[in-house]
Amino acid sequence: MQTELSKRLGVEHALFGFTPFPAVAAAISRAGGFGVLGAVRYTAPDELQRDLDWIEAHADGRPYGLDVVMPAKKVGGVTEADVEAMIPEGHRQFVKNTLAEHGVPELAEGEASGWRITGWMEQVARTQLDVAFDRPIKLLANALGSPPADVVARAHDKGILVAALAGSARHAIKHREAGIDVVVAQGYEAGGHTGEIATMVLTPEVVDAVHPLPVLAAGGIGSGEQAAAALALGAQGVWLGSIWLTTTEAGLPSPVLVRKLLAAGSGDTVRSRALTGKPARQLRTAWTDAWDDPQGPGALPMPLQGLLVAEAVTRIQKYGVEPLLGTPVGQIVGRMNSERSVQAVVDDLTRGFERAVDRINRIAGRSQQ
Amino acid sequence: MQTELSKRLGVEHALFGFTPFPAVAAAISRAGGFGVLGAVRYTAPDELQRDLDWIEAHADGRPYGLDVVMPAKKVGGVTEADVEAMIPEGHRQFVKNTLAEHGVPELAEGEASGWRITGWMEQVARTQLDVAFDRPIKLLANALGSPPADVVARAHDKGILVAALAGSARHAIKHREAGIDVVVAQGYEAGGHTGEIATMVLTPEVVDAVHPLPVLAAGGIGSGEQAAAALALGAQGVWLGSIWLTTTEAGLPSPVLVRKLLAAGSGDTVRSRALTGKPARQLRTAWTDAWDDPQGPGALPMPLQGLLVAEAVTRIQKYGVEPLLGTPVGQIVGRMNSERSVQAVVDDLTRGFERAVDRINRIAGRSQQ
Repeated sequence: MQTELSKRLGVEHALFGFTPFPAVAAAISRAGGFGVLGAVRYTAPDELQRDLDWIEAHADGRPYGLDVVMPAKKVGGVTEADVEAMIPEGHRQFVKNTLAEHGVPELAEGEASGWRITGWMEQVARTQLDVAFDRPIKLLANALGSPPADVVARAHDKGILVAALAGSARHAIKHREAGIDVVVAQGYEAGGHTGEIATMVLTPEVVDAVHPLPVLAAGGIGSGEQAAAALALGAQGVWLGSIWLTTTEAGLPSPVLVRKLLAAGSGDTVRSRALTGKPARQLRTAWTDAWDDPQGPGALPMPLQGLLVAEAVTRIQKYGVEPLLGTPVGQIVGRMNSERSVQAVVDDLTRGFERAVDRINRIAGRSQQ
Repeated sequence: MQTELSKRLGVEHALFGFTPFPAVAAAISRAGGFGVLGAVRYTAPDELQRDLDWIEAHADGRPYGLDVVMPAKKVGGVTEADVEAMIPEGHRQFVKNTLAEHGVPELAEGEASGWRITGWMEQVARTQLDVAFDRPIKLLANALGSPPADVVARAHDKGILVAALAGSARHAIKHREAGIDVVVAQGYEAGGHTGEIATMVLTPEVVDAVHPLPVLAAGGIGSGEQAAAALALGAQGVWLGSIWLTTTEAGLPSPVLVRKLLAAGSGDTVRSRALTGKPARQLRTAWTDAWDDPQGPGALPMPLQGLLVAEAVTRIQKYGVEPLLGTPVGQIVGRMNSERSVQAVVDDLTRGFERAVDRINRIAGRSQQ
């Protein structure tokens, strides 16, 4: 599974794996794919530094990358406290009531809220970049629009390719104008923040819109047949996130959550603003139902919602409160039915890809080699 | 583009084209695909008879099929008048107000409402079947669940394959249990009634669920690359509906509507209950906005909504009232940018398919023939 982009990056398979877990990122690269570590949940630069160094030590010299969440627009001088002050009291009460309804215990006195997305704040993202640019990453991806021009220039100076996610051809064209090297076209069926346009339609639209820039297809890809489909649509590789969540290397903190992921079908996710304030696909739970209920107060815009629910999400995760417990994940969750090693997932992807190529050649009436 | 199913039906390409226009259905079959006439808008059996005879006379002896909307569950003895009586007055007033806001003229005294979906009523669908079973159709598709057992048996007696649409693996399994021969897996991005699961995820799920029954992929397919992707996912053919709307043979009644379709992007559709009461993807218009507005009364359930809006839709279409004028269409509308003949569309599909096969072989490192 080789494309111009995979050759340029020096990887065996044009498989890009996004993951918040260093052990998964390293294993993807070792297996011949390209591991990308998600940085958004790192608050302390030394933790990111430690984990990037760990990947370097465990990637067998294979290339890997980093994914940050950096807004292109500056929000000058706004602190977390300023944002906290904008949250209406009624919404805080709604969080309390929903947790109380499900008997979610409080955190112990002085216990920190572990789940906290602050990486979207520019000062945090910039600290992450200072760490990353001193390390041998080969790709820097940004999940929220094009990164600022100085960041693109700094990456290019270091020989690092810059990728950015897009949910529409319009977004993708903006990325090209910002000097981005690789566009990740993320379809409706993907986990996390997504638009409304499905991968089957979005991929070729983005490919046409930014030609000759390479495009990675994201959303709905968990098998080699799906990878073949995305490559047939013109992508130069596939970008997979959800499929790694149930790998043995992932080490999700909650066995209840692993069980829910393994049991969920493709119809058990929802595109909800419950987690961050922007529509993000995740497991449907009593928590997303509460926020999506027209009778409720509704989610606040980003970044307010993320701050509002941070402690609640920590409590739900810590105590494994099953009805409320969820995670960002795509519709592909329907085929995540067993815990497997990253290597087993990659082997399955490459074998399925070869099967799909055989199949498509038979349908095209081409002789088999 | 040949599969077991296309060979069984004796067609050159595994391309199935659904259309309400006899001229399009015949042209698809002449071009080497399989034309399927949608019957839902026929109220008079002699009109359907006339149009099926016309197709037979213009299909050059190639096979074609019919698509009906037949509920598996009987709704015993309910007349259209009974259903009309269930529509709340507030909803009728909302229709009047919305039309008045946009200055939509009344129909002339005694002028019939041309747009009226009654084919979903079992007695109408059965009359359509009496006509169809006397004609040499090769496939009977049902858009609303599995057809009743006696209809399946009657089709099989005549050597007619029975297909049914499915938006989930669960639906597909029900179809197999009902003796259906072909499942059409219709993804989220499709025009008309759809579920939430995108084609990329739905197709392989349905293929696995009903194996070894053949599956056609529907939703998001308008190019040969997309056809190749769907076939890589395990489909035995592709089912295209939207792409024919802007063919020269289609003859859409309104030039305003054709202009809107040609101008629309993939983000200009919405999955709305405005038209039939069930979620159906269509152009987003001031009409769908009015029904989807949380401040409005909201759409009624099927079949009430269809009856409620029938006259309004006729008036909007007749007078070409641009802001309100829409049609069921999939996200693929973004690539419907010129009026072309059916033959040109089929040529484009087969050429794009060959390009995609070349591409996937290059990526797989297989030698080119």
